[in-house]
Amino acid sequence: MGGDLGPEEVVAGARLAASELGVEVVLVGDPERIGDAGGLAVIAASEVIEMHDDPAAAVRTKRDSSLVRTAEAVRDGRAGAMVSAGNTGATMVSALLRMGRIKGVSRPAIATPIPVPGSTPTVVLDAGANAECSPAWLVQFAQMGAAFSRQRFGIPEPRVGLLSIGEEPSKGTPLVKEAHCLLAGGAAGPEVHFVGNVEGRDVMSDAVDVVVTDGFTGNVVLKTIEGSMRFAMRAVLAALDTDEATKAAGDVLLPALLPLAAELDPDTYGGAMLLGVEGVCVISHGSSSSRAIVNAIRVARDAIDADLVGRLAASTGAAAGS
Amino acid sequence: MGGDLGPEEVVAGARLAASELGVEVVLVGDPERIGDAGGLAVIAASEVIEMHDDPAAAVRTKRDSSLVRTAEAVRDGRAGAMVSAGNTGATMVSALLRMGRIKGVSRPAIATPIPVPGSTPTVVLDAGANAECSPAWLVQFAQMGAAFSRQRFGIPEPRVGLLSIGEEPSKGTPLVKEAHCLLAGGAAGPEVHFVGNVEGRDVMSDAVDVVVTDGFTGNVVLKTIEGSMRFAMRAVLAALDTDEATKAAGDVLLPALLPLAAELDPDTYGGAMLLGVEGVCVISHGSSSSRAIVNAIRVARDAIDADLVGRLAASTGAAAGS
Repeated sequence: MGGDLGPEEVVAGARLAASELGVEVVLVGDPERIGDAGGLAVIAASEVIEMHDDPAAAVRTKRDSSLVRTAEAVRDGRAGAMVSAGNTGATMVSALLRMGRIKGVSRPAIATPIPVPGSTPTVVLDAGANAECSPAWLVQFAQMGAAFSRQRFGIPEPRVGLLSIGEEPSKGTPLVKEAHCLLAGGAAGPEVHFVGNVEGRDVMSDAVDVVVTDGFTGNVVLKTIEGSMRFAMRAVLAALDTDEATKAAGDVLLPALLPLAAELDPDTYGGAMLLGVEGVCVISHGSSSSRAIVNAIRVARDAIDADLVGRLAASTGAAAGS
Repeated sequence: MGGDLGPEEVVAGARLAASELGVEVVLVGDPERIGDAGGLAVIAASEVIEMHDDPAAAVRTKRDSSLVRTAEAVRDGRAGAMVSAGNTGATMVSALLRMGRIKGVSRPAIATPIPVPGSTPTVVLDAGANAECSPAWLVQFAQMGAAFSRQRFGIPEPRVGLLSIGEEPSKGTPLVKEAHCLLAGGAAGPEVHFVGNVEGRDVMSDAVDVVVTDGFTGNVVLKTIEGSMRFAMRAVLAALDTDEATKAAGDVLLPALLPLAAELDPDTYGGAMLLGVEGVCVISHGSSSSRAIVNAIRVARDAIDADLVGRLAASTGAAAGS
């Protein structure tokens, strides 16, 4: 029922995914608003958590909402993964409360891939699940982020960095300094290749594969990148539109610029992943097109096939026992 | 003595500024390394705080360093302002310890203008002076940021936003929630036009004139913008360089793209300003060209002419007495 473009776009994406990927897609929501499901199964849900609803309150009171019912379908084994373009906070809370946490995980985190054309994306986590974090949680984010980067992007030994305001371990907040100390001391276990502190300018570079931070800073970073990329694109388009000569030049350049725009388009990446819950949960951005939904479903399918949840459990459990 | 390009570049900028702006520039440093001062006065200083030196320790031990001597020259009235392209932390500590704080100011903050082509720059503060902040400090940053935006960019009623991860006052860390409560309640006084929470994507937009945040988040935001802009420029240049046709198109577009590049170039803005100390202190970035030094000196001159320090004192003192 979610997504800024309405259920039609999400349903269109689900139908495309079923035919293109050959996966079984179950739609959850109000059958009337879903309309023609194109033969896909439908789990009826009478309520909708709106984009502006308070996540925790809405999940508590709207028990027959599409988000809550979707998380229950995963919990009950009627679905292998949940994909949502709706209220991010409510998606997270539904998944957390209905699926539960992976044993040993203190807090789930949102992992968001940031495109780095010419290289594999950089995974930033936590991208907004926990505004406040403890150093031990950041250590778990490092473990989960490394396992995710390995599964999703096939990087054998992901380089994990801690977001700070300087390379030196002495830089940053007490949270960052303590997390640095733990990570540098090997608290994340042998599977995490910790490369030290990284800075904001390293996120969109190939200097690091996983960037660990608290959910407040991570969310600010994502939205700052989103804003500055949108700004840069507009500025370049405005320059192309200066006069007849630049318009003609723009036509020549378009084939070279389009692949770049596609690589930067969040639709390409299928959205973020909630790591640490007992099931696969993909959070597609609110303005997801049907193409973005297809990509999100592909990401969900790949996570199931590769047993991402089992890998996350192993990554966090192994170090807990060490 | 500072700056990644060496004292030569800084001296060249100082000489240019003296002739172009007609201001009296005093060079501080090792006379031998300064070389031909072109008739400018020189205050000799035998030590240099290097870029990698620990700021607090270096200011304590290198009492005859160019940075410490420059701050003393302002304190003693031998200079109206200090401009440095050296170690940012040491510039800040020198200014703070030698000039002292403006009465009533809890903590000085670094204010950095972010270019917004087509509009006036957005001032972000604190951009890195205080990794950890209290809500009351953020209120003072709002006051100082508004006074600075008014003086530097001539905005009569700057819109002041608080950086968070959602518009709702309930979003963010306890620090942000408490600061929101204070600012919304008018704690910053009638001179501050508080527009509520803003997000990372608003920094490079004309939605807000002053963005208030703690020094950790502010520094991460600046470096993220720096990294993503550098990335976008490189990507566009690579697209222009695809083949003969795109190269020809690029030649046509260059006149339209150059003003954009100039607007985005930090050299254009003359660097950041340390607000809250008893004197004008301009922090130019490490890789400052001679042109950047000229702009930094212009910014310093304008701040003196407009009595920025007096305005900051009034902006923070007025509310303290309200």
